[in-house]
Amino acid sequence: MRILALGVAMLIGVHAANAAVRTKVVEYRQGNTALEGYLAWDDAVQGQRPGVLVVHEWTGLGEYAKARARKLAEMGYVAFAVDIYGKGIRPKTPEEAATQSGIYKKDRRLMRARVQAGLDVLRGNPMCDRKRVAAIGYCFGGTCVLELARSGADIAGVVSFHGGLDTPTSAEAKNIRCKVLVLHGGDDPHVPRKDVDAFEDEMRAAGVDWQLVIYGGAVHGFTNPASGHDKSRGVAYDAQADRRSWEAMKAFFAEVLK
Amino acid sequence: MRILALGVAMLIGVHAANAAVRTKVVEYRQGNTALEGYLAWDDAVQGQRPGVLVVHEWTGLGEYAKARARKLAEMGYVAFAVDIYGKGIRPKTPEEAATQSGIYKKDRRLMRARVQAGLDVLRGNPMCDRKRVAAIGYCFGGTCVLELARSGADIAGVVSFHGGLDTPTSAEAKNIRCKVLVLHGGDDPHVPRKDVDAFEDEMRAAGVDWQLVIYGGAVHGFTNPASGHDKSRGVAYDAQADRRSWEAMKAFFAEVLK
Repeated sequence: MRILALGVAMLIGVHAANAAVRTKVVEYRQGNTALEGYLAWDDAVQGQRPGVLVVHEWTGLGEYAKARARKLAEMGYVAFAVDIYGKGIRPKTPEEAATQSGIYKKDRRLMRARVQAGLDVLRGNPMCDRKRVAAIGYCFGGTCVLELARSGADIAGVVSFHGGLDTPTSAEAKNIRCKVLVLHGGDDPHVPRKDVDAFEDEMRAAGVDWQLVIYGGAVHGFTNPASGHDKSRGVAYDAQADRRSWEAMKAFFAEVLK
Repeated sequence: MRILALGVAMLIGVHAANAAVRTKVVEYRQGNTALEGYLAWDDAVQGQRPGVLVVHEWTGLGEYAKARARKLAEMGYVAFAVDIYGKGIRPKTPEEAATQSGIYKKDRRLMRARVQAGLDVLRGNPMCDRKRVAAIGYCFGGTCVLELARSGADIAGVVSFHGGLDTPTSAEAKNIRCKVLVLHGGDDPHVPRKDVDAFEDEMRAAGVDWQLVIYGGAVHGFTNPASGHDKSRGVAYDAQADRRSWEAMKAFFAEVLK
């Protein structure tokens, strides 16, 4: 077993050493709105590869989502960190973030259109294998990728990290064609048990292929070191839940993007 | 990525080809009761290795738990499939299984003593690295390994596959020293939401390192092909949930038995 583990580690090491991650800012539009996303890929990978859409937190597209995109690129995917809010709209305060995210939470049609616009960019990239695409999202972005699923998007899977699970149109879960993985903090005060229960019932009623992982002790924002370490605030980083949830995503991708 | 995956597969293939799984029946005792377990290991592995205890379903120690033990041996562990009921007590009907499992469900002290006796056999084996031991259990066996955790056993982790989560002594969760992973079918009628909620509350109140994975669409007994395929009966095999839950266990072991 140790020999095996060492062998795997060496292979991964070799791959990482050869990785040549490149990034670029991509301007695109949804309707009349200018958007500015961030593409990441590994130049050492030849030809088409699976694509992963990354949807940002309520603070808008920033360094956090970009870092996740680069990490996915290192793993061999072509990743596109979308911009839901619009070029230059990058909330600086919680109030601004609440205002911006509130626009899309209240208008799920617009939310879906914005995620879809990003998906179109990713799919349109020649490096992307259009048939092997998944979407992940953090907090607000988790809500976005679940709405993408409810829109009936023809993708392989969506992953929500500490995302909001509520929707005003739960009956639309019947449109879901992809696999759904929800990674949730067991002590997340922003996504209470009633929301989790309602989500399970929604998935169940629609016969979706869904999985829910609850990380005991984790609160909202558990994957982002910028969340700090004070769990009593209801938002805090949890290194263990971060690592475990990333591994769960990798196992999910190994299944749906193979 | 494909090269990496191929490399990993080759290594695993090489390992499997070299695997020389051996098994033996082990007679042991708990108090005055004779028990008969089943040890599995790989002769190709040198020296001490992590140990995994396997606790059977309500039908008692049979081919299913033994097959899981052999699979764990192929992975490099030394595995011991315990006997909770006693030598020769192997229920043939659901009624007999209910009677036997009922004895231990009603007497959790005895249940814990029987699991502990198996753990002692595993730990006492010279191949076993005493500091790296985990326990897994199926259905009734899931209940058993959770009780082992509640007894304060000094092991690295327990994994319950579609196990019963209720306990008459939830306050004893404060004794738990190991990590806990519960793999649960989202439509399991034998472990209803109220039990899952109570379990979460129990773990939360005790500050346990716990994780719960819910597999949408899976019912009771989802890992055992012998459960059949009629989900309307509330017990059925689910190949996808079987595979996913085994992978979740492997990821957990990679963390707790490293």
